Amino acid sequence: MCQHCNYTIHAAQHHFGWDNANAPVERVAPGSTIAFECKDASAGQLGPDSVLADLIAMDPGKANPVTGPIFVDGAEPGDILKVTLEQFTPSGFGWTANIPGFGLLADQFKDPALHIWDYDAAGMTPALFGPAARVPLKPFAGTLGNAPAEMGQHSIIPPRRVGGNMDIRDLTAGVEIYLPVEVAGALFSIGDTHAAQGDGEVCGTAIESPMDVVLTLDLIKQTPLTMPRFTTPGPVTRHLDQKGYEVTTGIGPDLMLGARDAVSGMIDLLCATHALSAVDAYMLCSVCGDLRISEVVDAPNWVVSFYFPRAVFD
Amino acid sequence: MCQHCNYTIHAAQHHFGWDNANAPVERVAPGSTIAFECKDASAGQLGPDSVLADLIAMDPGKANPVTGPIFVDGAEPGDILKVTLEQFTPSGFGWTANIPGFGLLADQFKDPALHIWDYDAAGMTPALFGPAARVPLKPFAGTLGNAPAEMGQHSIIPPRRVGGNMDIRDLTAGVEIYLPVEVAGALFSIGDTHAAQGDGEVCGTAIESPMDVVLTLDLIKQTPLTMPRFTTPGPVTRHLDQKGYEVTTGIGPDLMLGARDAVSGMIDLLCATHALSAVDAYMLCSVCGDLRISEVVDAPNWVVSFYFPRAVFD
Repeated sequence: MCQHCNYTIHAAQHHFGWDNANAPVERVAPGSTIAFECKDASAGQLGPDSVLADLIAMDPGKANPVTGPIFVDGAEPGDILKVTLEQFTPSGFGWTANIPGFGLLADQFKDPALHIWDYDAAGMTPALFGPAARVPLKPFAGTLGNAPAEMGQHSIIPPRRVGGNMDIRDLTAGVEIYLPVEVAGALFSIGDTHAAQGDGEVCGTAIESPMDVVLTLDLIKQTPLTMPRFTTPGPVTRHLDQKGYEVTTGIGPDLMLGARDAVSGMIDLLCATHALSAVDAYMLCSVCGDLRISEVVDAPNWVVSFYFPRAVFD
Repeated sequence: MCQHCNYTIHAAQHHFGWDNANAPVERVAPGSTIAFECKDASAGQLGPDSVLADLIAMDPGKANPVTGPIFVDGAEPGDILKVTLEQFTPSGFGWTANIPGFGLLADQFKDPALHIWDYDAAGMTPALFGPAARVPLKPFAGTLGNAPAEMGQHSIIPPRRVGGNMDIRDLTAGVEIYLPVEVAGALFSIGDTHAAQGDGEVCGTAIESPMDVVLTLDLIKQTPLTMPRFTTPGPVTRHLDQKGYEVTTGIGPDLMLGARDAVSGMIDLLCATHALSAVDAYMLCSVCGDLRISEVVDAPNWVVSFYFPRAVFD
């Protein structure tokens, strides 16, 4: 699958959750380039023919598998693992769901919902959602990180300072990301690949899609880093910004409530202006709309804005 | 100053704070186009020759004047005031300050600091900050809104559902913004013009700059709107995105703390990689860096990211 790769890590070599006792599936030297096969976030429980009943029947214990872990020779606590993301090869199949109990507006959207995507993996043209919406694609890895120092099994769901399920929609090909190392060998894993997602991932899922990823791992020895950081070589929103945005706001003293108000406002707007059900609008917001903090200084009220790209309906 | 305007509202016709008892400076019909002269957020207390002592001596009672209010004939509570922003004519002078007690990291930056900008108002080329940083400009109004229904004088600092000091950096020429009306006539005012600002306005000030603004006011009768919303006709970040971004993150269960961690990380990075003092890095972040909510669903930890445009140093 990758001509210049030193290793290929197959999808079967995955784990659920983070545990620094997980045995490495490979030991590599710094500078190695590795191809990873990544399963989707359902670990294959959902496929192109899945229906709502399959979502309801899913085993939550098999959520969000990650391929790995990789032991990087010489990595020690206090180092930084530099990950250069080189290539994503999407599969063409994806799913987006509203999973009860999960998502920014879980209290409002209590019923499960599932959308299956069949997108153009070769041309990566915008993917159709319903009769009128076309969602620009930008593949990335929702989860990549190192094993935490704390012993035991840790849920895969929350991200941590060593990375993990960060769901940062700009971790695409060409990006360099720097992750703190907390254990010998770093124990890096990656998965939860997405064909597209907006900032916030508001309904809790993106276009969840199995994918192959090529990346290079390097070490930066004994350099302080509190939280992950990354560098993008170019613009990050040009796949969707050419027609501008519809923007809703949430204004008040709590950023979380502001985010909820902004997204609720957009769902109302999309339902009023397009033939969408509320849950479809919610899922569409999750795959292409962006949460931004417009101001966080005019006490006591902050402004959170939700940007929905007009190109999706244009 | 404006050939097709129906009215010109001069800078002397300003007020501090919001009070629905403020007498209108003009009554206009819906559809009117109006030119507003807007003072800077110091109400002229700072100028091109100001030094730190002038910032320290400022009267905080004269912060953030807004030009107006305008009584729109026929506007009633429950209506929407549609504001079409048509033109900004920047002055070429601006200031950015760290004002003690104000800003996302006020606990860390306790000393006042002032930067005076002398930018190219005709060509709007990026403005120099120190020897190496060049900040792309994008003029907009930090404050625009209607009078609130609640009687009495209300601070200008916090924004409200009727708008106000929203500091949304994309409220530029070409944008249509929709504001709830709470009192007869709407009582619209505008000011706090900025030559540039990032999402968040993290140090509490932008490139504060007096400016003339042309806009048109329209009414949409009796239509529900909970919070302000707006439409941008085109991309919103192309003035600064061509070279990509350096991005820092804050990961944890509190969005405010995440925002603080992400900005602190960027200040550390800019100080380490460029010859900047911490407070200069903080002010630079405020005028060109963006706070985004990358994910707000992977409980219990959210990811807030701070995007600093590489073009500023490139």
